[in-house]
Amino acid sequence: MQKYAIVVAGGSGTRMKSELPKQFIKLAGKPILMHTLEAFHFDDIQIILVLPESQIPYWKELVDEHQFKIPHNIIAGGEQRFHSVKNGLSSIKADDGLVAIHDGVRPLIKRQIISESFEQAERAGNAIASIQLKDSIRSITPHANRQEDRTNFRLIQTPQAFKIQLIKRAFEQEYTPSFTDDASVLEQAGHSINLIEGDYKNIKITTPEDLLVAETLLKA
Amino acid sequence: MQKYAIVVAGGSGTRMKSELPKQFIKLAGKPILMHTLEAFHFDDIQIILVLPESQIPYWKELVDEHQFKIPHNIIAGGEQRFHSVKNGLSSIKADDGLVAIHDGVRPLIKRQIISESFEQAERAGNAIASIQLKDSIRSITPHANRQEDRTNFRLIQTPQAFKIQLIKRAFEQEYTPSFTDDASVLEQAGHSINLIEGDYKNIKITTPEDLLVAETLLKA
Repeated sequence: MQKYAIVVAGGSGTRMKSELPKQFIKLAGKPILMHTLEAFHFDDIQIILVLPESQIPYWKELVDEHQFKIPHNIIAGGEQRFHSVKNGLSSIKADDGLVAIHDGVRPLIKRQIISESFEQAERAGNAIASIQLKDSIRSITPHANRQEDRTNFRLIQTPQAFKIQLIKRAFEQEYTPSFTDDASVLEQAGHSINLIEGDYKNIKITTPEDLLVAETLLKA
Repeated sequence: MQKYAIVVAGGSGTRMKSELPKQFIKLAGKPILMHTLEAFHFDDIQIILVLPESQIPYWKELVDEHQFKIPHNIIAGGEQRFHSVKNGLSSIKADDGLVAIHDGVRPLIKRQIISESFEQAERAGNAIASIQLKDSIRSITPHANRQEDRTNFRLIQTPQAFKIQLIKRAFEQEYTPSFTDDASVLEQAGHSINLIEGDYKNIKITTPEDLLVAETLLKA
């Protein structure tokens, strides 16, 4: 079955206190995004990189500079992450096959989890990486809060893998801000979500501290 | 107002894949627990360290070896964290004043948050360090799961600070496994919980990766 990976990188540098969008910041000598694309480099996966249109020329410079050889198609993103993913999906002409959607700034994803997400999506229609909570959790309302049982929750990561036909149809819905990830789009279209085991080390790099932590975890 | 800090360290080395209980593992040259006690070293805070009875002699050896000078009383812990905290509270003779309860393996706690927790507990009766979620979250039941709005939740840390009288009375309740932290004990006794802002860097060290991350954050 044909496999695709859509890597979405729409970040600006705001939270990183950097001029450079975070996906281009160097981790162990090369841009974060290159680590991410390398993780998805399998013989049978076509990689689609979705970038803000304004960043595409700079990315191409980086590819030259680092002699980056991982094959990938580049697609211009949209206003929100939703629209960027939708653009990525539209670039896939096939209707059968599988697609894994992944945050560009999660470079530490294990290749084993990528493989697992495709396998489970083929079986169940979708497969969403998630982890258990280590800390206690409380739910809050404007005037109160109360203890929740942390075993009743999972924190959601990427990759989120889907049968192409299902996720394409789900993305035909109108955008709402409650679409915080791709699973929420599929769920809204009436499908059950299939959680698989992610990894605590699969962090999303959004702050300077995250970058230091990622460097450490990469070396370990 | 008299202030106390109860630092609870009951861990074994199981998850750290180490013979040594995690609180004794070295971070930047000295046991994790010493960093934690140093954070709570203020002129007006009496520190109470609760350790499993079997670990007390070894802790005293470490104190000698590292010429560790931070004053603290040592109290033997109990079967569960609940019982250890209760033993710590029982060692406080006063009924007025404030107490902050903190995990021994959260050595990166900022002194500013400790001060803030005492101030807010004096005002509101309790103050519980907590952070917003960075990731999407789903609630799970045995056969399903669904998206939740992550802004409706907070992850709970320590310190958790209280008016002594309130928390002592709350700990007179019988232990139940739903007491996952001290706030849950106070809540069960009928009090509202007052959340204050914690810190993403205030991690609980429970795995070898956490230790590496803590080393990195400590240097940063």
